[in-house]
Amino acid sequence: MRDAEKVAARPSVAGPDAVVPEYHRPLLAPLTDSIRQLVDATVRTEVDDDELRRAHREIAAIAARLQARQMPGSYGQRVAAGSARFWGNPVVGVRNAIAPPLVIEYDDSGRVSAEFHLGAAYEGPSGLVHGGVSALLLDQILGDAAAAGGKPGMTGTLTLRYRRGTPLGTLRAEGWIERVEGFKTFVAGHLVDADGPTVEAEGIFVVPRWARGEAGSREWGQAMPDRFA
Amino acid sequence: MRDAEKVAARPSVAGPDAVVPEYHRPLLAPLTDSIRQLVDATVRTEVDDDELRRAHREIAAIAARLQARQMPGSYGQRVAAGSARFWGNPVVGVRNAIAPPLVIEYDDSGRVSAEFHLGAAYEGPSGLVHGGVSALLLDQILGDAAAAGGKPGMTGTLTLRYRRGTPLGTLRAEGWIERVEGFKTFVAGHLVDADGPTVEAEGIFVVPRWARGEAGSREWGQAMPDRFA
Repeated sequence: MRDAEKVAARPSVAGPDAVVPEYHRPLLAPLTDSIRQLVDATVRTEVDDDELRRAHREIAAIAARLQARQMPGSYGQRVAAGSARFWGNPVVGVRNAIAPPLVIEYDDSGRVSAEFHLGAAYEGPSGLVHGGVSALLLDQILGDAAAAGGKPGMTGTLTLRYRRGTPLGTLRAEGWIERVEGFKTFVAGHLVDADGPTVEAEGIFVVPRWARGEAGSREWGQAMPDRFA
Repeated sequence: MRDAEKVAARPSVAGPDAVVPEYHRPLLAPLTDSIRQLVDATVRTEVDDDELRRAHREIAAIAARLQARQMPGSYGQRVAAGSARFWGNPVVGVRNAIAPPLVIEYDDSGRVSAEFHLGAAYEGPSGLVHGGVSALLLDQILGDAAAAGGKPGMTGTLTLRYRRGTPLGTLRAEGWIERVEGFKTFVAGHLVDADGPTVEAEGIFVVPRWARGEAGSREWGQAMPDRFA
């Protein structure tokens, strides 16, 4: 099917659970990667004023072209199931340039992990990862650990202990389930650099009320295998 | 002074505390804003494959042009003082497209606050702010509250309680000091939507060892007034 036909086949008014045609990862991943490069370059560039003005003009024009046909509202309100469900996510999203992105893997013991690189765009104190960025990534990792246990939930509490500064560069995040009580999953995890853990995290993730019924479970369940694809 | 001269005047090998020439906010703010639009558009766009490919090619070319002359390493390792110190910051940075950005204000009571808008790029569960994004923003707000009390520090601990989902849209964050013990500042804060608090936070921010001496205090002190400029 050609692209124009795929778009035409989409309902003109997409409901909250409408599944729009998925764009292909080979198209969107390089586009998003190039924007990550752009974000990093804008933090660090030392080019002259004219080049900055030119870049601004050109980027504004590209953004307008991409906005010429776009989902109203947010991504998650349109793409509720399937492998594209998490593509908008600010930590793991294939189409979100805020995401480093983390590619999360899981082993048989239920431990989830990701190895990734953080550059200048994630800096807090000089040369170190912003404390809030560590929290952002660990929230996702802990949430994925809870989901891997079969009970995907929303963050109820999150506690972070910063043992030392986390250097920018190559890092690893790990998460695992401590125990499950009804709709609550108690999880823990940490960020690790070459010398060991830098930030430790604990959290309670709660299956939301709307997802506790059979229909809700089915919707969450449909999305699950792809979350780790 | 013309731009080419400003760049030429910079030391050819910038040390960790070198102050590079500041680019002007009127140049960098619109550029970064246009990249924020691009990030949001890439999450939501439904344009055809050819347009995605074309956008990718053009953005990669712009990024390469900005990278043609840039700081080696991270921003904070080069810009250690002055009003541009926080421009690379992923929550408040004028030149960081990851930042919404938050424009933090403070009142006489020492309370810091920011009103801001979060769109599709910050989404976790459908229509709601990603739990880790709430943590990212609150870490910054609490850190700024500690700094406003005269003791800027790094995050020691951060505890978040999610009372309910935080809807995407216009939000407010607030932070304040609970008490100070030596080099530790105990702070609290929350995210608020039209119906009240959605996420509550507590944290301990610690003045790092290297900043406790006179020289260190002076360096942090120099940067302070601009942090809230």
